[in-house]
Amino acid sequence: MVIHNTYSSLADTLSYRRQRLANLIDFPVILWSGSSSPRNFPANLLPFRPSSHFLYFAGLPLQNAAIRLESGKLELFMEDPKPSSALWHGEMPKRDEIAQQIGADAAKPMSELEFFLEDAATIAVQDAGTWTQQSQLLNRWVLPQNPLQGIDLELAKAIISLRLTHDEGALIELRKAAAVTVAAHKAGMAATSKATLEAEVRAAMEGVIIASNMTTSYNSIVTVHGEVLHNEQYHHPLQPNDLVLADVGAETEMGWAADITRTWPVAGKFSPTQKDIYNVVLAAHDACIAKIRPEVEYGDIHLLAATVIAEGLIDLGILQGNAEDLVEIDAHALFFPHGIGHLLGLDVHDMEDLGDLAGYEAGRQRSDRFGLGYLRLNRPLRSGMLVTIEPGFYQVPAILNDANLRVKYQNVVNWQRLSQFADVRGIRIEDDVLVTASGSEVLTAALPNDADTVENLVS
Amino acid sequence: MVIHNTYSSLADTLSYRRQRLANLIDFPVILWSGSSSPRNFPANLLPFRPSSHFLYFAGLPLQNAAIRLESGKLELFMEDPKPSSALWHGEMPKRDEIAQQIGADAAKPMSELEFFLEDAATIAVQDAGTWTQQSQLLNRWVLPQNPLQGIDLELAKAIISLRLTHDEGALIELRKAAAVTVAAHKAGMAATSKATLEAEVRAAMEGVIIASNMTTSYNSIVTVHGEVLHNEQYHHPLQPNDLVLADVGAETEMGWAADITRTWPVAGKFSPTQKDIYNVVLAAHDACIAKIRPEVEYGDIHLLAATVIAEGLIDLGILQGNAEDLVEIDAHALFFPHGIGHLLGLDVHDMEDLGDLAGYEAGRQRSDRFGLGYLRLNRPLRSGMLVTIEPGFYQVPAILNDANLRVKYQNVVNWQRLSQFADVRGIRIEDDVLVTASGSEVLTAALPNDADTVENLVS
Ligand SMILES: [Mn+2]
Ligand SMILES: [Mn+2]
Repeated sequence: MVIHNTYSSLADTLSYRRQRLANLIDFPVILWSGSSSPRNFPANLLPFRPSSHFLYFAGLPLQNAAIRLESGKLELFMEDPKPSSALWHGEMPKRDEIAQQIGADAAKPMSELEFFLEDAATIAVQDAGTWTQQSQLLNRWVLPQNPLQGIDLELAKAIISLRLTHDEGALIELRKAAAVTVAAHKAGMAATSKATLEAEVRAAMEGVIIASNMTTSYNSIVTVHGEVLHNEQYHHPLQPNDLVLADVGAETEMGWAADITRTWPVAGKFSPTQKDIYNVVLAAHDACIAKIRPEVEYGDIHLLAATVIAEGLIDLGILQGNAEDLVEIDAHALFFPHGIGHLLGLDVHDMEDLGDLAGYEAGRQRSDRFGLGYLRLNRPLRSGMLVTIEPGFYQVPAILNDANLRVKYQNVVNWQRLSQFADVRGIRIEDDVLVTASGSEVLTAALPNDADTVENLVS
Repeated sequence: MVIHNTYSSLADTLSYRRQRLANLIDFPVILWSGSSSPRNFPANLLPFRPSSHFLYFAGLPLQNAAIRLESGKLELFMEDPKPSSALWHGEMPKRDEIAQQIGADAAKPMSELEFFLEDAATIAVQDAGTWTQQSQLLNRWVLPQNPLQGIDLELAKAIISLRLTHDEGALIELRKAAAVTVAAHKAGMAATSKATLEAEVRAAMEGVIIASNMTTSYNSIVTVHGEVLHNEQYHHPLQPNDLVLADVGAETEMGWAADITRTWPVAGKFSPTQKDIYNVVLAAHDACIAKIRPEVEYGDIHLLAATVIAEGLIDLGILQGNAEDLVEIDAHALFFPHGIGHLLGLDVHDMEDLGDLAGYEAGRQRSDRFGLGYLRLNRPLRSGMLVTIEPGFYQVPAILNDANLRVKYQNVVNWQRLSQFADVRGIRIEDDVLVTASGSEVLTAALPNDADTVENLVS
């Protein structure tokens, strides 16, 4: 781990976050960073990713560390590197140097943490080694999948209220992640004409991210089978009539994420049917972004996307009826079965480790409606929130061949007409949109999304 | 997961391995594949890597599966994909299809495994979720770090005796990994002149691996600070007088690894001092490979490398005395502090999850000598073994500035002369060498390692 002074005042940013937390809660907090997990043997480790809650208040991707927050004070707990580790890992920054950089009020060895646990709240990290330690030290079960209770729940709610809107320190990082992700997508488009496999396009995209000394914020989707929504296979050949759907995002060294999807034609030219559907999805995307401003309900943005897609599919003769009525019966979800987007921040689905506590306004719950159940965010928007807008159109066999759905929607789908769009398996267009006081700013706007410009970037 | 028929007779290879196992043990065996670990929230997973022991007998990178081996029979235990998963993950191969491809004699749901546990031996996987499950089902602690006992120890010894030498199915995969790794290193050399950061060279190398739909078999080392032996930082700028040390290896989809190190000059031209040391390391590398054949002790190969390096450093005026005497007192380890290499197979340090059980012949233990303690392999070579040969020269501050070592070796190091080699921080040359009946075959020979050709590949 090397200390990068990515913004001049990391310590100031962290101090500001602690003060805001202290305004909300009056008990001490201990947050663990987590530790690496072994891949196939103990010395061969999977890439380390610290807990996002730790990163938010500690700033740096420290391993096997903890911080204690109380009344705006920050204490850092970690071991100094062993002298013998210098042989293998070189000179690493000492605890006191790190403490100074992050503006900690005190720095102590991890072994002393046990004396500072009283009445402290925490949030479970993801790796079993660390949540076992959390549980043992705090003498209660601290499990990632457990429902939060008591002061842990109060802490989670307080952190959510901070992390829901981004401060300047966060935005600097989020803009860096967005810029590298834009460059990655351009590289993917440019690499397509010479590529024969999905994997080669993925390599061009992730190469940009690696070259920027960043990581992917999630496992990339780079596929000609966009109809498989979470497709993590890259072995398919690229055929001239295929569309490449690429959902790839970078994450900065401090852990802040971007998340972009583009869909482009392998041959550099959309077929007429592909372009028709592409423009329906783009119309939904643009309409949603135009509507984003504080106080607007994100659930209404989702319904707007559904309505614009339904309208577009009516115009193309694929759906029949009135758009609002079709959305009412979830007919849009035959082709747009997921939500319009999600929170974005340190996590690509920000704070999803807390379940729907961050995504759903207090008192609201997931719908069990076919067209609403996958919505990850259901809150009024506020200035400083960062959300994705990612409408899509997919011909998912598991949906379109479902006997019950075919009966239910027999009168609203023109299957004959739909069969003419067989070369459109999946299209998604996703951008990262910051809610501002006056409306919105698209952090990923440097990446074109209109069909003509996308074609030009490919060929 | 998609089924690739990477070699025509996966089932035959697996059957052969089972028969060999059945010749060694007479109790049933259950091997678990393991499961993915979450990154920062449960739906965002770290890359999945199955247990190597499972891969050896099951062939395919299945998740949340187990196999039972008894008397040469193979039973597969896994759940069929849920119908609802087709929406997100597409149609996945069913248990019975997978069972057929791997030649299983039976296929059952995971939930039935509990009825087939009696008297079964196992080996712990690395992920906590799965070793907890192993422990619960077998009603004993099955922990990755526990010393093996009883039938588990017998099983480990039997598996080691199989995996120590590679069958044809394994060699096909190992050659593929080597070929892609060779291409990755060539790409790294070619990218250096336009690169400004280590990260950009790493991106060019890993890009080749990703484009081949493979993964890295370990976290890449791509650094101008080769003196930090396990350097996983990539942010340093490339200066014209720097050497890039790149230790990068690919792993096939079925889990078989390669492991190559090259060291090249950023400017495409070694300085005279860099070339002098480079040629010392290369001489050691070549001498070791020339000596490899069945029955030769790998420990003697290590001592040969130490001796050749000592001789070279004497010739350069850095060390003083007689090479054999210097090796006797571990003076070589001031500059070559690690072992000459290790086993290579499904793991980059093959079977290191079993500690030194695979690397060390029965009855042998690690030396505590400065110049021998890091040796990972200490056995007589046998035809079919794959080992790395990776001599190096490093100026590690933690060693060369160590007061005790400076006193101990005050009469054998010419510090004045050494100071003229300040532009050589670290050099390593590593190839993957298959022991054959008549000697050896370098699987990574397609990648040049002589100084002139390396210079040409860079510039
Ligand atoms: Mn997204
Ligand atoms: Mn090696």
